[in-house]
Amino acid sequence: MFDRAGNTKIHKRNYPATDYERLFYPRKVAILGVSSGENSIGFGAGILKSILAMGFEGKIFPVNPKGGQIAGLNIYKSVEDIPEDIDFAIVSVAARFVPEALEACRKKGAAGAEILSSGFSELGTPEGQALEKQIQEVAAKGIRVVGPNCFGIYCPRSALTLLPGPDLSRESGPVGFLAQSGGMSIDFAHAAKWMGVRFSKMVSFGNGADLREAELLHHLAGDPETKVITMYIEGIKDGEAFFREMKAAASQKPVIIYKGGLSRAGARAVASHTASMGGSRVIWQSMIRQAGAIQVADSEEMAQVTMAFSMLPQKSFRNITVIGGGGAIGVTACDLAETHGIEIPSLSAELQERIGNHLPKPGSSATNPIDVANPFVGPQPLREILLAAAEDPRIDLQMIVSLLFHYQGLAQAMNLSVNTVTPFRELAQAVRDVVDRTGKPVIAVLPNVKRGLESMDVTEMMAMARQEYVNCGIPVFDEMHDAIRAVARVNTYYGGRKK
Amino acid sequence: MFDRAGNTKIHKRNYPATDYERLFYPRKVAILGVSSGENSIGFGAGILKSILAMGFEGKIFPVNPKGGQIAGLNIYKSVEDIPEDIDFAIVSVAARFVPEALEACRKKGAAGAEILSSGFSELGTPEGQALEKQIQEVAAKGIRVVGPNCFGIYCPRSALTLLPGPDLSRESGPVGFLAQSGGMSIDFAHAAKWMGVRFSKMVSFGNGADLREAELLHHLAGDPETKVITMYIEGIKDGEAFFREMKAAASQKPVIIYKGGLSRAGARAVASHTASMGGSRVIWQSMIRQAGAIQVADSEEMAQVTMAFSMLPQKSFRNITVIGGGGAIGVTACDLAETHGIEIPSLSAELQERIGNHLPKPGSSATNPIDVANPFVGPQPLREILLAAAEDPRIDLQMIVSLLFHYQGLAQAMNLSVNTVTPFRELAQAVRDVVDRTGKPVIAVLPNVKRGLESMDVTEMMAMARQEYVNCGIPVFDEMHDAIRAVARVNTYYGGRKK
Repeated sequence: MFDRAGNTKIHKRNYPATDYERLFYPRKVAILGVSSGENSIGFGAGILKSILAMGFEGKIFPVNPKGGQIAGLNIYKSVEDIPEDIDFAIVSVAARFVPEALEACRKKGAAGAEILSSGFSELGTPEGQALEKQIQEVAAKGIRVVGPNCFGIYCPRSALTLLPGPDLSRESGPVGFLAQSGGMSIDFAHAAKWMGVRFSKMVSFGNGADLREAELLHHLAGDPETKVITMYIEGIKDGEAFFREMKAAASQKPVIIYKGGLSRAGARAVASHTASMGGSRVIWQSMIRQAGAIQVADSEEMAQVTMAFSMLPQKSFRNITVIGGGGAIGVTACDLAETHGIEIPSLSAELQERIGNHLPKPGSSATNPIDVANPFVGPQPLREILLAAAEDPRIDLQMIVSLLFHYQGLAQAMNLSVNTVTPFRELAQAVRDVVDRTGKPVIAVLPNVKRGLESMDVTEMMAMARQEYVNCGIPVFDEMHDAIRAVARVNTYYGGRKK
Repeated sequence: MFDRAGNTKIHKRNYPATDYERLFYPRKVAILGVSSGENSIGFGAGILKSILAMGFEGKIFPVNPKGGQIAGLNIYKSVEDIPEDIDFAIVSVAARFVPEALEACRKKGAAGAEILSSGFSELGTPEGQALEKQIQEVAAKGIRVVGPNCFGIYCPRSALTLLPGPDLSRESGPVGFLAQSGGMSIDFAHAAKWMGVRFSKMVSFGNGADLREAELLHHLAGDPETKVITMYIEGIKDGEAFFREMKAAASQKPVIIYKGGLSRAGARAVASHTASMGGSRVIWQSMIRQAGAIQVADSEEMAQVTMAFSMLPQKSFRNITVIGGGGAIGVTACDLAETHGIEIPSLSAELQERIGNHLPKPGSSATNPIDVANPFVGPQPLREILLAAAEDPRIDLQMIVSLLFHYQGLAQAMNLSVNTVTPFRELAQAVRDVVDRTGKPVIAVLPNVKRGLESMDVTEMMAMARQEYVNCGIPVFDEMHDAIRAVARVNTYYGGRKK
């Protein structure tokens, strides 16, 4: 492995040998703490049903001392009763029973376990801390632990899913995600579904008694299924190890860091949330920058920037076009671009003339930003405009801003539904065609100012339009601000790389 | 009038005498350029139908040389044929006929006119500039002109509306809005509808041949119906006059400025959009700050900050509580608050104990931020928690973050609709009750990570929830980031005022 200056670099790796294959893609899974009955809504029953809903194809062994049946499966009274060795265990028994249960799983051959139960060091009590220490002692004997106090592993390819996650996407993708916080993990997984962000694996590791940020990051850096790594960090256990891993990972693939708890009060909130320490804003900023990773400021930016890295080609985009209907779009785009170090260069007179042939008159403008004057310019002229603009050799990326909500007025005038009137399918296809022909990516920006109850038809159409674009592999943002900021983050990563 | 330092200050006001009453609340309106027929979708017919849809109760006189009928009204062949004097005219005839039409309206006694037609100085042609000069010559004889190349006046109390605006809110409210850009105006008016922002009047003045930023701002500063002034500015004609009016207005009421075209490329886009000049970022920032006005960075922030100023009490809010389910909410809130100069102080042990009585165990935290541990804590305990937290005399404002989308899982488990299961009505009522009892405002933050097509039930429920809160007078933001930034802008204004 080489560092970014090109020097060979051997990391100290004191990590235990770990069979990640059996952790992330288990064939035989025990679920401890499954109460029987179809209507059981306990965590154990919930995760069992979620994994089945996700299409898990291996063997599941539910365990509960009371026995019984669930979802057509016999419930074993103990782990020892399971007739085969297991790969992985999901533990949701009461905290005081966890160490013993974990030891039983280890003896059954499990390579790892996730402990969904809470009631450990996050309580701040001696009892909680003692129990967590016992977990660590079992783990040290040779079973890797995710948790406790976590939502566990989501891995679409094996159908493992987060604690409340029966409806997450079943499609695999390039993003590896790590977080202590279960809430952040499940929220990101849900948002990612409609944004078109797909995961190789996601690990919510809660208190991180055993496996945690540095070691998991090390694994994802070497994981061929993971092309982009995103992390939400509240606190870290070993700053030096984490910095080393972050730098090594960022030399391989984009690493996006959302660090929470940068404020004094935030550090206090971190302490009560996952029993770890936050850290100062300035130290983190410079540490992330020095490592060559990308820092984001909040969960929305985290999702947007992850989308940009996972859906755009692996390069920087310094010069872009912006195409939209309505002059303020162009004005806003220019202001945002300048703030973020992106250029919107004027196109040549020849290209302007060709573009002008497809623009309505008057009120349009063929300079870049290209103002198509009104929101009803159709897919065909937009396609021609995008094709022509891409001929400028400076242009790296194109951004099309479509105020589709304006079709509501047209639909009402024509007595048709807004879904029927708005040509979002044709628009998405036209954009896809432009990307294929020009080799230059296009970003779609689809704002919606009609979000009231009387405009649910518009909101639904916008969701359909987004899905159509995403299915065509085109990233979609709500606002130009989000789109341009995300491109700027991509530029920071690839612009700063010496390959 | 006094300036902010308390000195008496006489402004030079060379503005023509103007009958704003007849401009904004006309009883008799001529609409020039109305083509006949029920299916006419020309601008003139469109604005006529829009004004009728908005409930205009005065007299409308449509005008078109061809005559005919529209919407049960006779179309006059000329302005001269109108049998009465008029208050106001809406002009949408071809550019070359505009000066003559305007002169006819003046002779008919109109106090003002809005010219929706384009084809003037924005073209950059000698013909366009000559026509605009003719408009100015007619205006100088005693008729005030809004436009040309604009979407006109929206005034809910009189039912005047923007060019494509039959479905804007019919409720009046405290916000006066000014912009050259018609697109920005109509988009803001639509967003404002579901955000709960209501307007006294909105003026999209396009090229601003006659009435424009400084004079209109002067009028709104003295308008008792307008409590908050918001402007989107691309370019200004007279910087000194504008600065003077901005400062005078900001000494009376909050003035929110979104200045577009701050970049070099943006200034180029402004020039082609409304034929005026942009200006440097630094000059504008310091000019706005010195005037005591509030600068916002984009249209979303403009809408959010306007909402905060128009729905919150007129004071600053330095110390707040944040209540939410899930530890990352508290962490994020603290980070944001510190960035924006807001405190989230720890509550006293006594208040924490009382709040703790209403919190689920374990996983919750009664320090501020208050972590209610899960998203299903009901309206009744939340009401008690908010009431108790408000007893801390330092607290100026409370923020409740509700992840209502999580009710989808509960609804599915219970085989009920998410609208039925989610207690948003009770939540909004509980929050309203807390505000009434404590006299301290509450802001609701309602994020939605489930925006995919398969979750349209959640999206609809979120729109219903927002409407419920807005009907209770509670401002709603999508994200904590937006909410805390908006509060910070309010603090900048009221914190900086010497009264």
